[in-house]
Amino acid sequence: MSKFLCQRLQTLEAYTPGEQPRDKKYIKLNTNESPFPPSQGVISAITAGEIEDLRLYCDPECKALRQALAGLYQVKPENIYLANGSDDILNFAFMAYGQAGAAFADITYGFYSVFAQLNGIAADVIPLKEDFTLDVDGFCNQNKLVVIANPNAPTGLEIPLSDIERILKTNPNSVVLIDEAYVEFGGISCVELTRNYSNLLCVKTFSKSHSMAGARLGYAIASEALIADLETIKYSTNPYNINRLTQIAGTKAVEENDYYRENCKKIMANRDYTVSELEKLGFSVLPSKANFIFAKSDKIDGLSLYQKLKEKGVLIRHFEKPRIRDYNRITIGSRAEMEIFITKVTEILGEAL
Amino acid sequence: MSKFLCQRLQTLEAYTPGEQPRDKKYIKLNTNESPFPPSQGVISAITAGEIEDLRLYCDPECKALRQALAGLYQVKPENIYLANGSDDILNFAFMAYGQAGAAFADITYGFYSVFAQLNGIAADVIPLKEDFTLDVDGFCNQNKLVVIANPNAPTGLEIPLSDIERILKTNPNSVVLIDEAYVEFGGISCVELTRNYSNLLCVKTFSKSHSMAGARLGYAIASEALIADLETIKYSTNPYNINRLTQIAGTKAVEENDYYRENCKKIMANRDYTVSELEKLGFSVLPSKANFIFAKSDKIDGLSLYQKLKEKGVLIRHFEKPRIRDYNRITIGSRAEMEIFITKVTEILGEAL
Repeated sequence: MSKFLCQRLQTLEAYTPGEQPRDKKYIKLNTNESPFPPSQGVISAITAGEIEDLRLYCDPECKALRQALAGLYQVKPENIYLANGSDDILNFAFMAYGQAGAAFADITYGFYSVFAQLNGIAADVIPLKEDFTLDVDGFCNQNKLVVIANPNAPTGLEIPLSDIERILKTNPNSVVLIDEAYVEFGGISCVELTRNYSNLLCVKTFSKSHSMAGARLGYAIASEALIADLETIKYSTNPYNINRLTQIAGTKAVEENDYYRENCKKIMANRDYTVSELEKLGFSVLPSKANFIFAKSDKIDGLSLYQKLKEKGVLIRHFEKPRIRDYNRITIGSRAEMEIFITKVTEILGEAL
Repeated sequence: MSKFLCQRLQTLEAYTPGEQPRDKKYIKLNTNESPFPPSQGVISAITAGEIEDLRLYCDPECKALRQALAGLYQVKPENIYLANGSDDILNFAFMAYGQAGAAFADITYGFYSVFAQLNGIAADVIPLKEDFTLDVDGFCNQNKLVVIANPNAPTGLEIPLSDIERILKTNPNSVVLIDEAYVEFGGISCVELTRNYSNLLCVKTFSKSHSMAGARLGYAIASEALIADLETIKYSTNPYNINRLTQIAGTKAVEENDYYRENCKKIMANRDYTVSELEKLGFSVLPSKANFIFAKSDKIDGLSLYQKLKEKGVLIRHFEKPRIRDYNRITIGSRAEMEIFITKVTEILGEAL
């Protein structure tokens, strides 16, 4: 840290992303990536001609991609905001709507508390219930920015749309942000509610369901007024926020959405398999609607399981945090990857006896 | 704008980027892009395999690219920060170092005032002298964030390193940001000074000299402590800020730096040609060290020339601002483009008689 850094940022506790080893010697079940490559059309669309055109700025309005997403969701392009990954949208939302504070759960995406601190916003942390379900009543009548991941991470638990609607109705003077990074794996999206609730900001990403974590593409769906706010901040920070090739890849991916829907179904089937096998091994697994599961065993503590799996070439995610240190978050990969994972876990439990 | 937007952002005057028409019917001399495509190695490096790997997150540490740039500049990777375009770095610098205010010129990159407003920072606007040269004395002993584009935009004028050193010495308790977006076209970089001045933040980009405006890649070179500050903000906003393909393209471009150096020389030669032809037509042209020139004519006002050129299929940049509304900023393209530009200007002056 330099002596020039302003005081507010000196105590910032930055987010720690999952391990991203550059070699490929690990089976990566630690950062919720898709085991499937982008669709064939995405691969064909990035031609030598498009790479030559990198000399030109990208379209700051992302017209083609917005149009494609508008078609997919049956909304207007003016209801869609695009960003260099959904984290940028979350940050903008804290900046724009956090003036009265921000409410979020204690066990949720770890970045929310960082965005609150970065933007000098008071965080109202509302603990999940004992069973890790959301305290829906706690989020009602907050009249501050409400931020909920649905399904939640790292638990994978979902709340129904009726609960979201109750939170929206009881917070008419503040924005309710629903982070749907993981909704495509069996959850129910709140996009439909954006038609009736001008305070609903639905945030989504191509990183998980659409096999594009490395392309960086997030988006929000909301009322035109909320989207206009985000656009103003974009044009005051980084108007050319999404590079040319990602715009092309995203547009093509939307056109080929069926491929990604099928992939999500395969991941859900692999999730069922993994849960069933882990339960046979005595694990408790929360009922997940995401492309990961959150599991613990009475036979081995969370950190040891993480460490021993890493030694055996499988990366999962451990959070050394109160309430959840017994658990691990395990991304659902391909069937072959999950079979190896189960084999390794079985070995480790055997060694632990 | 929504009723939820916080008061501070309600009055934000966002930056207006240059026109980016999606068709290719214009000769684009309006946003300082390179007329040359990226080097052959960049085009070959983006393989189907790399596109398939978009399913995986990018390297948040950008190790390969930092290493390549460290080699190019003979600094350590810890002296280099990478961003999704250099605008992100400028914004972070205002956020991190603007607590005592920020000083910049009246005629310079229009985004500086936006970043000041966005971050709630008092702007100390120091007018350029009558001849558009920088008021170097005015920037001394400021003890606030100093932001200077060198060469300046849209004037193209350069200040010598001795002036930068004077500003660094007289502002020992604040950061001096030198924005070198355009330095590769005959200017002298201040990178060497970063070895001796821990308060110097040198900001650069692949957008102009390296034909990658649409890939979004900016970087900063500075003391390890300043870079550490920027990294902290990155890990508190968007750790995966640079997508996989841009990291690959950037790394390859550094390896093939000679190609880009040659392109810069060609652009400088085309600049000499264009200045000479415009002067024959009676234009006044400021002595530019950038890939654009700033020119005016007594025979036609700036806005009319811009409009008439657009009608004839050539886009240049006009700023409807005090002091400079007589001028236009003209990007230097290929020789063929500049010949067409000169032909069209000659036609327009003829029609104006």
